[in-house]
Amino acid sequence: MTTERYQKGLEVLKSVDPDSEERLKKLLKDIAPDMLRFIVEFPYGDIYSRPGLGMKTRELLTIASLVTSGNSPQQLKVHIKNALNAGCTKEEIVETIMQMAVYAGFPSALNGLFAAKEVLSEE
Amino acid sequence: MTTERYQKGLEVLKSVDPDSEERLKKLLKDIAPDMLRFIVEFPYGDIYSRPGLGMKTRELLTIASLVTSGNSPQQLKVHIKNALNAGCTKEEIVETIMQMAVYAGFPSALNGLFAAKEVLSEE
Amino acid sequence: MTTERYQKGLEVLKSVDPDSEERLKKLLKDIAPDMLRFIVEFPYGDIYSRPGLGMKTRELLTIASLVTSGNSPQQLKVHIKNALNAGCTKEEIVETIMQMAVYAGFPSALNGLFAAKEVLSEE
Amino acid sequence: MTTERYQKGLEVLKSVDPDSEERLKKLLKDIAPDMLRFIVEFPYGDIYSRPGLGMKTRELLTIASLVTSGNSPQQLKVHIKNALNAGCTKEEIVETIMQMAVYAGFPSALNGLFAAKEVLSEE
Amino acid sequence: MTTERYQKGLEVLKSVDPDSEERLKKLLKDIAPDMLRFIVEFPYGDIYSRPGLGMKTRELLTIASLVTSGNSPQQLKVHIKNALNAGCTKEEIVETIMQMAVYAGFPSALNGLFAAKEVLSEE
Amino acid sequence: MTTERYQKGLEVLKSVDPDSEERLKKLLKDIAPDMLRFIVEFPYGDIYSRPGLGMKTRELLTIASLVTSGNSPQQLKVHIKNALNAGCTKEEIVETIMQMAVYAGFPSALNGLFAAKEVLSEE
Repeated sequence: MTTERYQKGLEVLKSVDPDSEERLKKLLKDIAPDMLRFIVEFPYGDIYSRPGLGMKTRELLTIASLVTSGNSPQQLKVHIKNALNAGCTKEEIVETIMQMAVYAGFPSALNGLFAAKEVLSEE
Repeated sequence: MTTERYQKGLEVLKSVDPDSEERLKKLLKDIAPDMLRFIVEFPYGDIYSRPGLGMKTRELLTIASLVTSGNSPQQLKVHIKNALNAGCTKEEIVETIMQMAVYAGFPSALNGLFAAKEVLSEE
Repeated sequence: MTTERYQKGLEVLKSVDPDSEERLKKLLKDIAPDMLRFIVEFPYGDIYSRPGLGMKTRELLTIASLVTSGNSPQQLKVHIKNALNAGCTKEEIVETIMQMAVYAGFPSALNGLFAAKEVLSEE
Repeated sequence: MTTERYQKGLEVLKSVDPDSEERLKKLLKDIAPDMLRFIVEFPYGDIYSRPGLGMKTRELLTIASLVTSGNSPQQLKVHIKNALNAGCTKEEIVETIMQMAVYAGFPSALNGLFAAKEVLSEE
Repeated sequence: MTTERYQKGLEVLKSVDPDSEERLKKLLKDIAPDMLRFIVEFPYGDIYSRPGLGMKTRELLTIASLVTSGNSPQQLKVHIKNALNAGCTKEEIVETIMQMAVYAGFPSALNGLFAAKEVLSEE
Repeated sequence: MTTERYQKGLEVLKSVDPDSEERLKKLLKDIAPDMLRFIVEFPYGDIYSRPGLGMKTRELLTIASLVTSGNSPQQLKVHIKNALNAGCTKEEIVETIMQMAVYAGFPSALNGLFAAKEVLSEE
């Protein structure tokens, strides 16, 4: 059941979010247990594990995307944590979010900054 | 009329898009000539010129945002060109866009890849 | 005041959401009482009541749309309930939401699954 | 077949877009002829015809919404024309679109300005 | 440090949201203190302060944009308050939001109405 | 190189879009050849191939999602074709798109109808 892609994805995912597998397994087990496998395999096993971009840049790109769509505040906070775990500085994360004021507008950028503040105050 | 912010912004903008000022001036002169000043001053003079993130990363973040919103194909192509001018490799740009399949869905990522293909074939 | 369209719409709406009229009347009475009439008449009286698609399919399509826009979590939960009342199985609802990972990205699909989990645990 | 709402809506719609009924009838006749009725009745018969906001303000609000979503360039151009017909000045339309740079980002605002330029150059 | 643009923007901002500077300073001081300056300078100093549209219309346009994107409920409530402070009536605000049902769909319009209800009940 | 998931996905994809593999291979070969594999494997091999929803319903759900996001007109046309190939009637497709007027607004629904008209006139 655990494919090679799953193993590779899990390794990548755990490098930035160590307890993600347990957390997602618990959240998804009653509603869509297969979704855990898809999350580990496609985003992490297939995409994040590719060479060409380092994990720090990948997490900043994800923050840029989540601030732009603006409808997934929980996942934004998870990826702000993951960006810190990947070695991004607070400054790099804040700069990424501030830049989104240009492309997604000020309200979305402000929401992103408040999410970052919440994550950083919990650390 | 040309403020210090305008001069600073123009320098940053021209470093990745040398003929942008002339092009935007022409495009905007009959409809909203002040907009040129705002574009140079706020996005470039205030944001892109900040330390904390290099120009290469900033252009990739912009590509991530534009692929996510998916409604500005012309500006996406401009920023793919700018990313190349900032020193990003084709591979870094393609990886950025492919990662958006996870966050913005496959159709938006595919549109981003086709935009990149068009820009790269023109170079 | 209650038009034929209102009566037809109300019948359709009550078939999937029996206490909707009272609930919406209460929610809207101090702010926009006419909005109740528009909701019953246009979405339900004009659209949902059309032949060509059954109520089960219509509710799944609405779930697909609400997971894609991702900015109306309350209405998404209402329509997950309505889909169950229309005769959709848990499996059909979960499959609908999971498919949205392809088109709206994983974070929006995960939010949809968590909404479904909440509705199903309340039933 | 033509209800009172249709007549009221058509009057409002024709006041800003005189040939809209013929144009929409032609565009929709082979695919969804009923859609014409819904467009005239709900947006124009039910909403635009309400007191409380004048037609000029309503058209500017629609431009703000269409620049924000950014995915309906044809309808944006139609509503820029309608705003002019309702008595809005070029300046009011341009200011509306420029303000969207704050909320929807610069690329969406620029696309709106280019749409306005195209409409104004055709007039 | 406080530029002319900042002073002009602050005056405009305070005319509709008197304690905004203190509130934003507090919210942003630990995460992105420079963002306060950008908010005051660009949206208020550069855009809202322009002639061509009055403050009432500008606040209604912002409400239209925020209901359309639908992902910034806090800022929507702030701008509903600001619209009231600018002299908009409850009716004008409600009409603006109801019109968005046509362009952004019923769920987004309903969320806007509930936000307005909350603000109005607090006043 | 062609995994079991690829084979399963290709079979599902070809059942609704027979020449998709060749078309996508050609479109992607110079820019992101691996993307073809991801498209076949994840959306089709992992998701569309799941039991619980038939292909007709899946294609209508995809149309609902693409009309809602509104930024991928080419993929919308591909999926309207695929829906026809899966056995959906013109009426079912048109009803799906019209229902989106309620959730994504009239402009997005109109764009969807015009896309459907184009596809149907080519058949």
